[in-house]
Amino acid sequence: MTETKHTHPCQIAIVCPGGPITRELAEKTADIAAARFGDGVNLHFHEQCYASAGHFAGADAERSAAFLEAANDPKYSAVWFGRGGYGACRLDDELFGKLNDHARRKTYFGYSDNGFLLARLYKKKIGRQVHGPIPTDLNREGGQDAIARSLSYLVHGDTSGMEPTVKTGKPCVAFNITVFAHLAGTSWAPDLTGHIVMLEDVGEYLYATDRAMFSIMDDRSIQNAAGIMLGRLSDVPENDRPFGASEEEIVQYWCERAGVPYLGRADIGHDAQNKIVPFGAFVSA
Amino acid sequence: MTETKHTHPCQIAIVCPGGPITRELAEKTADIAAARFGDGVNLHFHEQCYASAGHFAGADAERSAAFLEAANDPKYSAVWFGRGGYGACRLDDELFGKLNDHARRKTYFGYSDNGFLLARLYKKKIGRQVHGPIPTDLNREGGQDAIARSLSYLVHGDTSGMEPTVKTGKPCVAFNITVFAHLAGTSWAPDLTGHIVMLEDVGEYLYATDRAMFSIMDDRSIQNAAGIMLGRLSDVPENDRPFGASEEEIVQYWCERAGVPYLGRADIGHDAQNKIVPFGAFVSA
Repeated sequence: MTETKHTHPCQIAIVCPGGPITRELAEKTADIAAARFGDGVNLHFHEQCYASAGHFAGADAERSAAFLEAANDPKYSAVWFGRGGYGACRLDDELFGKLNDHARRKTYFGYSDNGFLLARLYKKKIGRQVHGPIPTDLNREGGQDAIARSLSYLVHGDTSGMEPTVKTGKPCVAFNITVFAHLAGTSWAPDLTGHIVMLEDVGEYLYATDRAMFSIMDDRSIQNAAGIMLGRLSDVPENDRPFGASEEEIVQYWCERAGVPYLGRADIGHDAQNKIVPFGAFVSA
Repeated sequence: MTETKHTHPCQIAIVCPGGPITRELAEKTADIAAARFGDGVNLHFHEQCYASAGHFAGADAERSAAFLEAANDPKYSAVWFGRGGYGACRLDDELFGKLNDHARRKTYFGYSDNGFLLARLYKKKIGRQVHGPIPTDLNREGGQDAIARSLSYLVHGDTSGMEPTVKTGKPCVAFNITVFAHLAGTSWAPDLTGHIVMLEDVGEYLYATDRAMFSIMDDRSIQNAAGIMLGRLSDVPENDRPFGASEEEIVQYWCERAGVPYLGRADIGHDAQNKIVPFGAFVSA
């Protein structure tokens, strides 16, 4: 039997580069996968998903080893991140030099804090990086549909859950604003010249989003982007004084200041409607 | 009468590059200055300090114009920032090209969000930049002593309120961690090769401080710094799970990872004890 991209069942490894998930969430995710995709998919939750070391799903070395193991294993066609949280930027620098040819043929799927890792893999051109819902989204209302959207893309190559702009074929990426503000200017940041950059966030004051946009739009690579699209900003806390500009005005302000086109809203966010954005120029299979 | 650095009375302009202050706070500040320094100092609060435009002490153009006016005026020996908050990074890029020779002989004094502006002036070698207490610190317990420390430095050149490491003569700077994480890698960031970089913060989760340190320590200029010193992190909110490392362990971790010496604690922070750190190598008058 020859291995192809859509070998059945589709074997997906789950690891957690930031915070941990519970066994209960893993079981719930597996149940949904079974109910919706039958024997079309097998989910392999790495034990590291349940590890705990302070804020993280295990120490940096443990999270790095689990990711490396999953990425290098020829059995899996994709590595799905179980949760964001915080911690992907602490993975060992050395692991990236150890990723093998199997790792280079895989899909890496997640968002939010996972963006640090997706960015670095995209920069190093290792595999295909995809922004989209992850198991921990099951905790949201509508979360079952969200993760089914991801699985349908991974198992069947179903593009109906993709962010519409992706289908134009222009190179796209999607990032969390706070994550990208920290990523911009670092050695982990990919060159986004010519890209449509979709941005979203959750739980940040508008002034913090404004400050993050300063950092993002001052980045030379971003200044050569094709444009910025704004996803949803959810759970924005109320400040002691109103910011005085809407979220869209904030992004437009910084785009104008940087001379980068603002291209409107993107259908992404920290919510169950969060759409799928494969990094780079999408070519249908 | 010839103008010298310590012309009496010492004329200080106050402007607000971020958030506004009240007239009451300005009066209280002037009263303390009068009570402690008699006719040795005159404080000139620019009307812009009381302006309001959403989050800011007036629109970007108004804050930029007030700063430019104060900086270029030969009457003042120093520009003291009335408050931090957020907004210094939104000042007009054009103003920096309009700063005159008087602006180049001035002291610029503040901290926190003001750090964006201090950084850019330091990068452009315009005047002397100093981290230290500002009028809004009067709202803290012990705030009177804090602002008297600043005034004594500005009026008399009193170095007793300086952070002790400054006196070694090694080039120093001091920044807020969140501000510097956004500054790092941007066109506003000065080259800090060979500098001792003192860092402090307020009101941030430890995971956010850890993430900010990723961004700071990945910066190439910081990787050539003489070392990092940690000031105080105050009002750290409790997270839903303990971070698992102390604030000092966090900074040590990222210093080690970047190969930059960790040099211990610095006596700075968002508090009344916040000491004075002139940027660059301090030479006593």
